[in-house]
Amino acid sequence: MFRTLASRMTFTIRLSEEIVKPRIAYAERGGRRIKERVNKMLEKKKELGGTEEKPGKFVLKTGKGTRDYGPAQSALRNSVLQNVVETFNKYGAETIDTPVFELRDVLMGKYGEEGGKLVYDLQDQGGELLSLRYDLTVPFARYLAMNKITNITRYQIAKVYRRDQPVMTRGRYREFYQCDFDIAGQYDLMLPESECLGIVHELLTKLEIGEFFINLNHRLILEGMFAVSGISPKDFKTICSSVDKLDKTQWAEVEEEMIKEKFLTKEQTEKLGQLVRFRELNSGLSNLELLEKMSQLPELGQNEKFKKGAEELKVLIGYLDVDGVTSVRYEPSLARGLDYYTGAIYEAVAPKALEGTAVEKSEETAGQPVGVGSVAAGGRYDGLVNMFDAKLKVPCCGVSFGIERLFAIMEARQKNTVRTTQTEVYVASAQKNLVLERKKLLRTLRAAGIKSEMPLKANPKLLTQFQYAEERRIPLVVLIGERELQEGIVKLRNVVSREEKASFQTSEKSIIFFSFRTFHSIHSSPPFETLSLHSRQSIYCSHSILQFLVFFSSLPSFFLVQVIIMQLFLFLILHIRCV
Amino acid sequence: MFRTLASRMTFTIRLSEEIVKPRIAYAERGGRRIKERVNKMLEKKKELGGTEEKPGKFVLKTGKGTRDYGPAQSALRNSVLQNVVETFNKYGAETIDTPVFELRDVLMGKYGEEGGKLVYDLQDQGGELLSLRYDLTVPFARYLAMNKITNITRYQIAKVYRRDQPVMTRGRYREFYQCDFDIAGQYDLMLPESECLGIVHELLTKLEIGEFFINLNHRLILEGMFAVSGISPKDFKTICSSVDKLDKTQWAEVEEEMIKEKFLTKEQTEKLGQLVRFRELNSGLSNLELLEKMSQLPELGQNEKFKKGAEELKVLIGYLDVDGVTSVRYEPSLARGLDYYTGAIYEAVAPKALEGTAVEKSEETAGQPVGVGSVAAGGRYDGLVNMFDAKLKVPCCGVSFGIERLFAIMEARQKNTVRTTQTEVYVASAQKNLVLERKKLLRTLRAAGIKSEMPLKANPKLLTQFQYAEERRIPLVVLIGERELQEGIVKLRNVVSREEKASFQTSEKSIIFFSFRTFHSIHSSPPFETLSLHSRQSIYCSHSILQFLVFFSSLPSFFLVQVIIMQLFLFLILHIRCV
Repeated sequence: MFRTLASRMTFTIRLSEEIVKPRIAYAERGGRRIKERVNKMLEKKKELGGTEEKPGKFVLKTGKGTRDYGPAQSALRNSVLQNVVETFNKYGAETIDTPVFELRDVLMGKYGEEGGKLVYDLQDQGGELLSLRYDLTVPFARYLAMNKITNITRYQIAKVYRRDQPVMTRGRYREFYQCDFDIAGQYDLMLPESECLGIVHELLTKLEIGEFFINLNHRLILEGMFAVSGISPKDFKTICSSVDKLDKTQWAEVEEEMIKEKFLTKEQTEKLGQLVRFRELNSGLSNLELLEKMSQLPELGQNEKFKKGAEELKVLIGYLDVDGVTSVRYEPSLARGLDYYTGAIYEAVAPKALEGTAVEKSEETAGQPVGVGSVAAGGRYDGLVNMFDAKLKVPCCGVSFGIERLFAIMEARQKNTVRTTQTEVYVASAQKNLVLERKKLLRTLRAAGIKSEMPLKANPKLLTQFQYAEERRIPLVVLIGERELQEGIVKLRNVVSREEKASFQTSEKSIIFFSFRTFHSIHSSPPFETLSLHSRQSIYCSHSILQFLVFFSSLPSFFLVQVIIMQLFLFLILHIRCV
Repeated sequence: MFRTLASRMTFTIRLSEEIVKPRIAYAERGGRRIKERVNKMLEKKKELGGTEEKPGKFVLKTGKGTRDYGPAQSALRNSVLQNVVETFNKYGAETIDTPVFELRDVLMGKYGEEGGKLVYDLQDQGGELLSLRYDLTVPFARYLAMNKITNITRYQIAKVYRRDQPVMTRGRYREFYQCDFDIAGQYDLMLPESECLGIVHELLTKLEIGEFFINLNHRLILEGMFAVSGISPKDFKTICSSVDKLDKTQWAEVEEEMIKEKFLTKEQTEKLGQLVRFRELNSGLSNLELLEKMSQLPELGQNEKFKKGAEELKVLIGYLDVDGVTSVRYEPSLARGLDYYTGAIYEAVAPKALEGTAVEKSEETAGQPVGVGSVAAGGRYDGLVNMFDAKLKVPCCGVSFGIERLFAIMEARQKNTVRTTQTEVYVASAQKNLVLERKKLLRTLRAAGIKSEMPLKANPKLLTQFQYAEERRIPLVVLIGERELQEGIVKLRNVVSREEKASFQTSEKSIIFFSFRTFHSIHSSPPFETLSLHSRQSIYCSHSILQFLVFFSSLPSFFLVQVIIMQLFLFLILHIRCV
């Protein structure tokens, strides 16, 4: 408003300067007053802290680059994470957890110039200066140094934070999960690396993300190739960042960048190109053959760094052969993460993971490759713990899964939606005023370890109850009405087939409790589609089996005990019958 | 150095002022120069951002009020969380996840004046203003409003952040887990509340934290009691905060606070005291008897608010009776969380949870009560979603577990340390140069789903390997040496009994693979102490059972399928034998 007033003033001034001068003075005073009032009001608003604002006034959203996980996404994510954890456990890992924020000094200078800019800082509210963690590796190194731990194989699954440009459809967020597996300690050459690569291979196979490769390289091989190309060690990182683009970009373009932006000579790039494109130029050769052939190059074969790196990779490739890790591909152009990697580096890519999915067809990403880039990456970093404690030498190697990308792949490839609850039985009633009866039944079911619900309405409609069970894919409804109560029975309804069955005696101890252990087991290793199938089967079990399983359910829940008793039970029955 | 110089100067001046005056001038100039140089250096250091600092220079620690969870703590925590999740699943809950930070506007004004001060803000780095979540309830309400969800039963387990004064020994941290279970939706009176209290009762019983109570009250009962005591509604919150202290403080002290600090009259406090101390003054009465007796008080019994609140609680208590929730105690002095609670409120306390533990005896907490305060709290909050979307009416009620306190209790009460890995078999070698043989064995074991490790050394010492297995409580060692390789067998060592056994034929398909499904089952419902027992048993299985289980292990891992096949198998064997 003040602005409008002022511009009108300008106009008036032009009209007749003599006449309006006193007016200007007045308007200026007025303007000043308005300004003062606005300022006062703003100050007051600030004091009130915005609490006086009416509800629903601001836009309801999550922070940029972050998202909620609804029930369906959470269920899918948990099933993926369960696979991840199981694999880590299979390899003998422990787990640790560190705070979401670290002292700013801990993170500072660990991620290079680029990464450092992306760290979220907490506001200085008095006390320490804090920042959100950028990855799990630096906090892990801090944990080792702080507790003087020289020996641990651990995994950690937690969210990390980067103020990056988000690309949601490809699973790139500002808040995202990382799943890290690391082996710290003095071990023998390449044995830890072979464990890390074994995990990558096993897990990606298990998750069925489609074809994938694990590219493998070694820092010393890169250094050796650069040296024989006449590239100065001080250009190492910047040339690495160009070379690393070769997985998505043509050599000509990369070469141009190195010449124009990084001032290499044509001679240098030509030499380098022959080396970093060695796999491309020698297609059809195995990993060992490639390494062998490179070692026979006159200059490179004599370079000490290259020789050491190649020797190490040969040992590793030998191990991977025995381990059955067939997806590894020696790739001399892999050159990332070299801010802290000191030895072998590796990165898993799934170039066609999104082929044929909705993501591929979506407009936002049209024309882009159907891969999701790296789904796992890692390497050896022997110097990181050292940065925190100069006296502590803890060689480490590890791998970090881009689990968010794996979620995106699973979400895109998913054919059947995941059940979001694990409810096995829904307790419904056919008439009014049965809420207490339903509650009694529910109590019995839950006491037997059966996951069960009932409608939280006093007098729900029967149809609504059936609909709910169908929507939620709850396999079984236990139905009571007045007749059932009189006869002391319950009705069993198979939700999938909608078939209802003559039901069994109800008492505190014995009802229907057939295959709930089955459900339990299905959930803990989740093959989503099989649930309805199994539940359908379970209803056709014979009465005697049901009776047995009721007895069975009252036993302690250790599987072994149950299996043994089950065996004994069957043995006895059959034996007696035979005799 | 400048200081030393200056103090020397003072000394010189005293000696002979005349002589030294020129010297002083010189020294002052010199001092100024030194000062200037130091300042310049400090500025330069600041510019460099401290990245040039030598490693290990700053104190390595986590942020104030936060901690790392090492492997042992993580294992314990995971076992507690597993119990929590299982219970939530049993009650039919879905799960969601929300970002660790929210737009500052979302959190603002939701936690009262006190709570608002404890919110961690993120630094303004351009873009939105963000804050770390203070609890999970407000993000949940934001999630409902943003997605227009009117109906969901969800749990969420995640860390929240409060810039509070930490008391680590009692599990009070600045970063801590919350486990929330909430029922949102239009349901019938007190049915959702009975589910929430059922969960609290079941979970706390399951966790074996010792004796606990769930105190229960109702906002309308508090409002009614205040009204008949002549206390103005505008004093509601401040008087609530006094009344709520009655669980730890004597009445006289609370009364004094209300009179001196909150300006109630003696008459008002006397009336109020008779009401809020009703349980204390009428010990021995049941919940319903207490409510009945209060309803018969001439003034209070006529108060509409009290009447409504009391009626509601009676319905709830009736339900809880049927549900078998015996730990609930109507407590008219419970008065917390009233910033957003609108109906029933409840809080679980474990007054003697730390009795007899190391925490009780520690100096830091000597003389303090051995309870940990509230271990779960919740209530009905019908207005919260409304604050985000005025058009959306979503009644909610829920409960939040103070899981960090539960960890502290479990940690203090814990008798046996938890295993930190789940490794079932350790592959060791008796001689040198067997790394490839060990790797082959490891591959076979892992391919069969057995969690297994081997030493990551080329030539580990036998004793070191045995020690490792014992320390880690790995139940079984598979040992190979040259003799074993020649004979095509492996040696089995029971780590607990140190007994070694004649071993079985090794090939790609058949080795030792006995009870690994058992281990799996034990891990998924973790009775820590039983592990070694079972593993000890498993080694005594007969050869034929082992053979069978090897076959068994190659089947798909669905439990039902396995059980059915197992039954068929046994049936056939026994039947054939009989015939």
